[in-house]
Amino acid sequence: MNKYFYKCFNCSSQFTADEIESEGSFGKERIYLCPKCGQAEKNQPLKGVLLVEYDYENLKRSRSRDEFLKIPCGKFWRYSDLWPIRSFEKIIPQSKLERISLTHDPLLEFDYTGRKIFVFDDTRNPTLSYKDRATSLVVLKAIELGINEIAAASTGNAGSSLAGICARLGLKSHIFVPENIPSAKRIQIQSFGANLYLVKGDYDQAFDLCLEISRMKNWYNRNTAYNPMTIEGKKSAAFDIFISMKGIIPDKIFVPVGDGVIISGLYKGFTELLKLGWIEKLPQLIAVQAEGSNAVVRYVQTGKFEYQPASTIADSIHAGAPRNLYMAAHAVTTSLGTAISVSDEEILSAQKSIAQNFGIIAEPSSAASFAGYEKFVRSGSISANENVLLMLTGNGLKDTSALSKWNDEPVSKSTDEWKKLFLSE
Amino acid sequence: MNKYFYKCFNCSSQFTADEIESEGSFGKERIYLCPKCGQAEKNQPLKGVLLVEYDYENLKRSRSRDEFLKIPCGKFWRYSDLWPIRSFEKIIPQSKLERISLTHDPLLEFDYTGRKIFVFDDTRNPTLSYKDRATSLVVLKAIELGINEIAAASTGNAGSSLAGICARLGLKSHIFVPENIPSAKRIQIQSFGANLYLVKGDYDQAFDLCLEISRMKNWYNRNTAYNPMTIEGKKSAAFDIFISMKGIIPDKIFVPVGDGVIISGLYKGFTELLKLGWIEKLPQLIAVQAEGSNAVVRYVQTGKFEYQPASTIADSIHAGAPRNLYMAAHAVTTSLGTAISVSDEEILSAQKSIAQNFGIIAEPSSAASFAGYEKFVRSGSISANENVLLMLTGNGLKDTSALSKWNDEPVSKSTDEWKKLFLSE
Repeated sequence: MNKYFYKCFNCSSQFTADEIESEGSFGKERIYLCPKCGQAEKNQPLKGVLLVEYDYENLKRSRSRDEFLKIPCGKFWRYSDLWPIRSFEKIIPQSKLERISLTHDPLLEFDYTGRKIFVFDDTRNPTLSYKDRATSLVVLKAIELGINEIAAASTGNAGSSLAGICARLGLKSHIFVPENIPSAKRIQIQSFGANLYLVKGDYDQAFDLCLEISRMKNWYNRNTAYNPMTIEGKKSAAFDIFISMKGIIPDKIFVPVGDGVIISGLYKGFTELLKLGWIEKLPQLIAVQAEGSNAVVRYVQTGKFEYQPASTIADSIHAGAPRNLYMAAHAVTTSLGTAISVSDEEILSAQKSIAQNFGIIAEPSSAASFAGYEKFVRSGSISANENVLLMLTGNGLKDTSALSKWNDEPVSKSTDEWKKLFLSE
Repeated sequence: MNKYFYKCFNCSSQFTADEIESEGSFGKERIYLCPKCGQAEKNQPLKGVLLVEYDYENLKRSRSRDEFLKIPCGKFWRYSDLWPIRSFEKIIPQSKLERISLTHDPLLEFDYTGRKIFVFDDTRNPTLSYKDRATSLVVLKAIELGINEIAAASTGNAGSSLAGICARLGLKSHIFVPENIPSAKRIQIQSFGANLYLVKGDYDQAFDLCLEISRMKNWYNRNTAYNPMTIEGKKSAAFDIFISMKGIIPDKIFVPVGDGVIISGLYKGFTELLKLGWIEKLPQLIAVQAEGSNAVVRYVQTGKFEYQPASTIADSIHAGAPRNLYMAAHAVTTSLGTAISVSDEEILSAQKSIAQNFGIIAEPSSAASFAGYEKFVRSGSISANENVLLMLTGNGLKDTSALSKWNDEPVSKSTDEWKKLFLSE
């Protein structure tokens, strides 16, 4: 028996690893969504997203909590029995794995307005965003499957992550992006030597085109939520929180949400820790969305999805049709969390607070977590003794244009003018 | 007796820590350069730069090589007896130290054109550059001295480093920059909440003004080379190389050189390892400069310094009068290294190679190390079995304008156009 199998989030059907991963099991095409109910439709959340499952009862016996807590953050290959790779040793040497090691020091602790806050800083990963968590697993799975070319649709970070990690490991990447992608993000993708396809149209069109061309060329596809490795890879942050907090779990975690894959990955990771008996309850996951891109908030409130074109300055959480909507909403409700919206103004103000109080330049989407936290504090929804953690998921230097919105153009003075000014103080 | 003392690099005079660090020892002003021979003159390298020295014979007895090698990279406070802070415990809690932890995984190993290359990746430090090594010690020294405000002159990275680390630890920063600084770097400094002073003039004028205002306001001054903590802080990379290579030392290290402080810090660190008997010889330090900013190269060749205005795309190694010229040249010659120049064209080509082969977007100055390496390989100056290490000292996302110089503006196509193109392949 393989150490893992697949389970459909929608219809609960189970499949062996071979059934999903061997080409031709269910017809000619490589399988990503559930072979029974999977659907990828335009402007709709994906249906039949697959989850990776393990034999937790067995793991419970073979794995020790104390040993797990000794694994350094970022070295995901060290908990290999909780990772859907048959054998790391067989597919990649240790020195290559080290090249894609994730951030080692994600947890920072600050005092802010009289309260202790934990910040999970994922802005120092290899390509400076949380996306590297998904990419690292996707790329390893491609290597295991013997595929050398990987494609993804992206609005920026996922693409630069795939391009960068592929460059590190010597694979070829193909990135499909809408033509209005910020130029700073576009140039990162190009710089890593990826093949870049600029699509006249929006992210949805790039997404569909990428699926079609990937099938045609037999490239491995990294589209977010569509490839189950993206959710599975993103669970590593839950483990890194558990490890860096030495076995304690925050009461509330504020998570920026666009397509809903990060929050789903976090939920997956914490659920596994719960199944292993290593934590006693799930942290409350607070999904924070931009007001102009809040399909998860609306779905949690009404149980319905209706497509609305998205509009927000926080491009990494810009998603009219969150691909992993259902799983994200499930993560929120099952963890007894909630989903809230924040305005672009609040996001920019949060970006400033994060830079000036924590010394981290986070991208606007990341700042949403802090904006959500502040909203909670204002409404009195956090009690004094709760442990709160904010997820910072991308580095603000990936696109500095937002920073110009709250920093003035400074005035230049001669040395004599400056001296006079200081003397007159 | 204090665990460390100061020694002038120029006249070899020795001073106790108290003599240098207590205000008023030698007149009214805080001391940075040698009280006997120190000179900071316009467009000249600094004279009388101070070095921190320890009782190595004593350390040799009390410190174990094996224990040292177990310290995680980036946790500089763990080798506290080789750091000029009297007691970390007394001045700062552990959780605050963790906020300024340096990169944990600096060492990457690649195969490139049939040869193994080590890359020291300092692009993932808190503010994404090597400068954080200097800043972290400067800031801790300020805290120890009871000073809350720190000033620096900068062309970008040092300023954003000081601004960011100060934000992390709750100190106030004052950054003096020439008015032509790249706007991307300027906005990072501002974003961290620093007080920014844009000076009509060049770096030299900003440097002098910063010294003058720092004295006037009694701010601690972080000007590079001028403050001995900048060199001392930068030695940590030598320790991190030693630790991450498990006690082996590269044969050759290629170092981008502007003001000459990084190479001096590396030399200082390796010299200490040698004094402790933990390594058998120094690595050869190869100083790589831009052709239009190569005062160290000229000094090593001729023994003379003559000021020439600098001009290079690699703004972080742009230095007409390298402040730490004499120590940098000493590091090169004593380590049996050499100093070479590379053109801006070679630097840009190296930036591309680094991104596409190593998956790292390094800034142009960092790419100089790779350009220097390629020059060595072309001239047959590296033998097949030598261990080579390239220093990457700053993240390329701090200013993406250089990337545009070697990436084309991509053409946008409709989904149908892309499909046709793929089908016709």
